[in-house]
Amino acid sequence: MDALARADSPGLENLGRSDCFALLRSVPIGRIVFTEAALPAIQPVNFVLDGDDVIIRTGMGSKLAAATRSAVVAFEADEYDEDALTGWSVVLVGRAEAVVDEAERRELATLGLTPWALGERPHYIRIRPEIVRGRRIRRPAAL
Amino acid sequence: MDALARADSPGLENLGRSDCFALLRSVPIGRIVFTEAALPAIQPVNFVLDGDDVIIRTGMGSKLAAATRSAVVAFEADEYDEDALTGWSVVLVGRAEAVVDEAERRELATLGLTPWALGERPHYIRIRPEIVRGRRIRRPAAL
Repeated sequence: MDALARADSPGLENLGRSDCFALLRSVPIGRIVFTEAALPAIQPVNFVLDGDDVIIRTGMGSKLAAATRSAVVAFEADEYDEDALTGWSVVLVGRAEAVVDEAERRELATLGLTPWALGERPHYIRIRPEIVRGRRIRRPAAL
Repeated sequence: MDALARADSPGLENLGRSDCFALLRSVPIGRIVFTEAALPAIQPVNFVLDGDDVIIRTGMGSKLAAATRSAVVAFEADEYDEDALTGWSVVLVGRAEAVVDEAERRELATLGLTPWALGERPHYIRIRPEIVRGRRIRRPAAL
């Protein structure tokens, strides 16, 4: 057992901010991470980007809407190829805010964000990222 | 705008515990959700199940090892089909514990948990789920 194990591993590459947003734009589903009743919580959501902000929709009375009200949340998206042992993950951290301005809501309605589940989802949440981190994993060809 | 929007949506089906574990066994990657410097944090990991416990490996000095030391964490896995608008997500919540017993570590070494990234990862973490929740999303055929 090696007590000098490192936090960073060979085969893990840190991604720049523009790469992170390009990757985010390539997938429809991410995961919002928040606190619910003092416990860590996570929920997959479909999303779009509005500039660098993540926009999601939810039901007005949903737990997600309640738990993320002006809270600092994380948002993650990733993609993996099990056969090639490659993949990437991007994590944003920032404050979630309900979008209440009607003009802004009309703008967001044009972004093509259609929830996969049915039911009324009139509530828009905007996450303004303050921290942006991405990593790509690529197992060296030699192994 | 409908102020009476529901937390549960048509097309979302809650899954039973055995279905949740069967789905978890079908994927190699999950995401561990924890708190780091008072902020929500999430990190993809590959994992195996040991009974109903989630087992992951990490570097001894890693942030993940430090942040999850006897902490309550969430663990999530999911799978989505973008074309069919279907998918599932399973979330466990429980206490994470470092596995320090040598006999237990030798047992876990037989489970075939090979980290995708290289580097020494001698540290096993066991998550004992106390809460198990799963949802399947399936857009009704009529739409």
